[in-house]
Amino acid sequence: MNFVSDARLLELPHHVREDGEVVVAEVMAHIPFTIARLFTVRAPLDTERGKHAHRRCTQFMICVHGAVEIICDDGSGKCVFTLNRGNLALHVPPGIWNTIIFHKEDSVLAVLCDRLYEEEDYIRDYDAFICFRQGARL
Amino acid sequence: MNFVSDARLLELPHHVREDGEVVVAEVMAHIPFTIARLFTVRAPLDTERGKHAHRRCTQFMICVHGAVEIICDDGSGKCVFTLNRGNLALHVPPGIWNTIIFHKEDSVLAVLCDRLYEEEDYIRDYDAFICFRQGARL
Repeated sequence: MNFVSDARLLELPHHVREDGEVVVAEVMAHIPFTIARLFTVRAPLDTERGKHAHRRCTQFMICVHGAVEIICDDGSGKCVFTLNRGNLALHVPPGIWNTIIFHKEDSVLAVLCDRLYEEEDYIRDYDAFICFRQGARL
Repeated sequence: MNFVSDARLLELPHHVREDGEVVVAEVMAHIPFTIARLFTVRAPLDTERGKHAHRRCTQFMICVHGAVEIICDDGSGKCVFTLNRGNLALHVPPGIWNTIIFHKEDSVLAVLCDRLYEEEDYIRDYDAFICFRQGARL
């Protein structure tokens, strides 16, 4: 079972030139899993999204435009990460409750996942999440 | 050898709610290859980027913020695609010369690739590209 200390912020290579900036994330070098799915999330200013945990899915998050705050919670501890540059990525293992706050207008969060969408992988109720964490620890 | 008619625009599933929008791209269902790399490109308004072809790399492009125009050229024909919504994707097979024009301030293009970065995979000179196309057709 993972703890918030297993969520990991990393800086991706970026190449800045007069005609723009390129940020690169390679599988294995930066993304520690085979990618099954990409999704992007846009939300109005100050919206809270996420508010769920995954039983098995691992996520790799990049704020490709704007800025978001991601609160990771393992039921015992919390960590807050700010993604406010396109070359910052957050690796979130399964078993962590995530809340994402969209801090700037027009922010876009891109998330790479190691699993396809499976509704049964989601824990959307916080009390059920605490039971899941306690059960898993017994 | 691919032609511009093999470049393919597709509409990705998107889920719009009051608290935001989610766009999903799944490997196999939408992305027809195993992902080796993601890169994002930001560029000043009206900048032209790309201006190269790949010998072997296949790309899957999503404009995650703003709008870009992508000109695909196989040496004989050209196609112009506009990515101006986050749920439009362009699948570009290898052997196609691409030019990307950043049409809106703060536009961000995300590109998924089936290969890691290999400098020898790039053809950066247009005359060399035409020779590559002609050689490949002989």
